[in-house]
Amino acid sequence: MFKTKNRVRMHDTDMAGILYFARQFRFAHDALEDFSADEGFPFDQIFHKENFVFVVVHAEADYLAPLKVGDALDIDLIIEKIGNSSFTIVYKIYRSVDHLLVGTAKTVHVTLDATTRKKIDIPPQFRKILEKHLAS
Amino acid sequence: MFKTKNRVRMHDTDMAGILYFARQFRFAHDALEDFSADEGFPFDQIFHKENFVFVVVHAEADYLAPLKVGDALDIDLIIEKIGNSSFTIVYKIYRSVDHLLVGTAKTVHVTLDATTRKKIDIPPQFRKILEKHLAS
Amino acid sequence: MFKTKNRVRMHDTDMAGILYFARQFRFAHDALEDFSADEGFPFDQIFHKENFVFVVVHAEADYLAPLKVGDALDIDLIIEKIGNSSFTIVYKIYRSVDHLLVGTAKTVHVTLDATTRKKIDIPPQFRKILEKHLAS
Amino acid sequence: MFKTKNRVRMHDTDMAGILYFARQFRFAHDALEDFSADEGFPFDQIFHKENFVFVVVHAEADYLAPLKVGDALDIDLIIEKIGNSSFTIVYKIYRSVDHLLVGTAKTVHVTLDATTRKKIDIPPQFRKILEKHLAS
Repeated sequence: MFKTKNRVRMHDTDMAGILYFARQFRFAHDALEDFSADEGFPFDQIFHKENFVFVVVHAEADYLAPLKVGDALDIDLIIEKIGNSSFTIVYKIYRSVDHLLVGTAKTVHVTLDATTRKKIDIPPQFRKILEKHLAS
Repeated sequence: MFKTKNRVRMHDTDMAGILYFARQFRFAHDALEDFSADEGFPFDQIFHKENFVFVVVHAEADYLAPLKVGDALDIDLIIEKIGNSSFTIVYKIYRSVDHLLVGTAKTVHVTLDATTRKKIDIPPQFRKILEKHLAS
Repeated sequence: MFKTKNRVRMHDTDMAGILYFARQFRFAHDALEDFSADEGFPFDQIFHKENFVFVVVHAEADYLAPLKVGDALDIDLIIEKIGNSSFTIVYKIYRSVDHLLVGTAKTVHVTLDATTRKKIDIPPQFRKILEKHLAS
Repeated sequence: MFKTKNRVRMHDTDMAGILYFARQFRFAHDALEDFSADEGFPFDQIFHKENFVFVVVHAEADYLAPLKVGDALDIDLIIEKIGNSSFTIVYKIYRSVDHLLVGTAKTVHVTLDATTRKKIDIPPQFRKILEKHLAS
């Protein structure tokens, strides 16, 4: 499990007064960027220097409590499943002040060859970092 | 079924060169705003003049083909299910140029009393417009 | 002068109930994308097939009246100034319902060689479309 | 002067490979939210408990160097000018790795009565925190 932090910003909210639902996915993806950088694969490097990329093929989220501007968040990132070319990540989003689980998210990614954009096996060095955070 | 249009903008893309995945949900919600306004319930009115609001409790999306800046989109909005206080909407997103289905989305909404924020039955006048677009 | 349309969406607003100020720039840039595509230079083509790109070096906006979700907008795009390698665009944003000028924006762009990223003269074929819309 | 940090995220970039220009303003506003919270006026409190709000009437930014996904940022917030009902904030954005000044921004705000939405003098308790960070 990888842990990171975030914060609800004005640009994440809408005129209903709380989080615009689609913005919950940016907390998920920001966490993925932190995870990937922390494990030696910053996104800028993946897309410019590696011979693979990964794309999102499915995303989902549940909303358990309203989030307000300024709310500090603790985010847990867990690798749920690793296939040949795809992997599934689960995110648990907690409001820091009371550690309430306010939302969850899931993203499914497929690994592509950077040039041909064809599906390829997850490269061994990247698979290793996924396995390290695989849910037991 | 309600039909509307949209377009992929620079601000919807990211440095990977295609749509940032979370932005697919703005096509869904923009369509919901168009639907609601078209049926007599513009969002500004719901949140300022009606005694109910609805919030998203679940969202999901599938990504079937990459979307590029400038791509024109045709979006179908279908009411999949109507419960007592909740309803489920399905969105089908087509690339206009070749009518390819490039993505789908689903959102589940719960109706709340605008003041108490407690779950309430879907108001009859709003239920009527949902029923009108219910999948057969 | 080039004219286009847009609409304020939930994702453009924040919990203060009106437009999040930075989103006014997406109305400007959406208009620029429409203008460029309409004149034969869709952004996807510029960044993938042309040997030049342009980047924003300055942006500014004035806010004259609050914008609410659902507001339809009419946008005028005027080329204010054309230099050797740079050009300045002014945008006037009107609320369609009463044609009230609700905001203005300005962006200054510099043309770069797509490969070297060095400043270059505006390519003649692009200069032509700018001159066509130059403020008199 | 108030100092805070941020990071360029995938959702801040576009298909040109670098920061989408309008997103530079979210670094400015995130900094303002941090400043305001740090000085005892979290935005959620201002908009729900205080009898004043402030709105942006002008915004501008200069772009001095390209920003890439993952870039860590150091942001300085300086109050440039305090009027009767308005105040001006300047932001300097540095890339943390080499402390290069990559961009600047400026926002001008006007204080309104929360109920009447009429211009009012900056409340004394808020003026005090602005004066504390006024450029000398």
